[in-house]
Amino acid sequence: MKFGEERTIRRQSIYKGAIIDVVVDDVQLPDGKEAKREIVQHPGAVGIIALTDEGKIVLVEQFRKPLERAIVEIPAGKIDAGESLETCALRELEEETGYRAHSLKKVQSFATSPGFADEVMHLYLAEQLEKVDDPLQGDEDEFIRLHEWTIDEALKRMDEGKVYDAKTAFALLYVKQFVLYN
Amino acid sequence: MKFGEERTIRRQSIYKGAIIDVVVDDVQLPDGKEAKREIVQHPGAVGIIALTDEGKIVLVEQFRKPLERAIVEIPAGKIDAGESLETCALRELEEETGYRAHSLKKVQSFATSPGFADEVMHLYLAEQLEKVDDPLQGDEDEFIRLHEWTIDEALKRMDEGKVYDAKTAFALLYVKQFVLYN
Repeated sequence: MKFGEERTIRRQSIYKGAIIDVVVDDVQLPDGKEAKREIVQHPGAVGIIALTDEGKIVLVEQFRKPLERAIVEIPAGKIDAGESLETCALRELEEETGYRAHSLKKVQSFATSPGFADEVMHLYLAEQLEKVDDPLQGDEDEFIRLHEWTIDEALKRMDEGKVYDAKTAFALLYVKQFVLYN
Repeated sequence: MKFGEERTIRRQSIYKGAIIDVVVDDVQLPDGKEAKREIVQHPGAVGIIALTDEGKIVLVEQFRKPLERAIVEIPAGKIDAGESLETCALRELEEETGYRAHSLKKVQSFATSPGFADEVMHLYLAEQLEKVDDPLQGDEDEFIRLHEWTIDEALKRMDEGKVYDAKTAFALLYVKQFVLYN
């Protein structure tokens, strides 16, 4: 038995959607009591920390309906069924930015909201970028504005409260600490 | 009109739970086409980067049902109705760790999963910690194991894939970069 393990007594399906499913579990706690757990199921996602040869980070600005505002993020997207993480990373990068990466390294995987969601974000560092003339076409309902910032510009904007996304905040600190200044 | 704004045509309520609600919006895209957006609504949360006088970071290990495993995270919890962010930060820290903080500074706010959730995480740096004899009691369904790691220990574990949480990964890099080595 794992530390603190919560045994599922019953699972109720609430919603099956295009991107998320929602279930509610009745669980037995380590002390024998029962509790409810609301869980959002998500296929997982890949985020790409893409650096140009000049050391600028490639960012995408898009409207996020849950927040009712546009925010600036590293390119990212959900993993398609049967797709490898590396394929997903290269695909999303090209679809969202028009860049093809000739170097791709795994950085880190983490849960984004472990209290209520099973989504795991897998981060990759993409370098040796090449702008392609005929990039893969992404979702037709994505409207994206591209930005390329130096890390210090990006960190300044984060300090001003203008980087409003967890994976992107992590990515900026990661590049500052482990990539550009090594 | 904001960049890329998606106008809500219709909102359907799918689920009203204890911690999350779920809605599905029909939206009009900037090009006039329509799309669906699945949205998880969450009250928002506070995470606490708590440092002891010896410069160790205070972490909590708990079972996360969505992931079906225990993970190590900075102390965090959702904001109660009408509660200020600072009150929430001090409360969650004391409930989960038994520490009262005499210094509390805002670090950063960010969305955790902006593709499908409106949850915003507000991070605070807590210092001048005092272990209290009669800490506030937390949720009775939380089973928590405490850890205090040096930042270099914590970063080593992150490198080994053992820090599996976005806010915690950010917190470790933040402390390494901006707090202990300033």
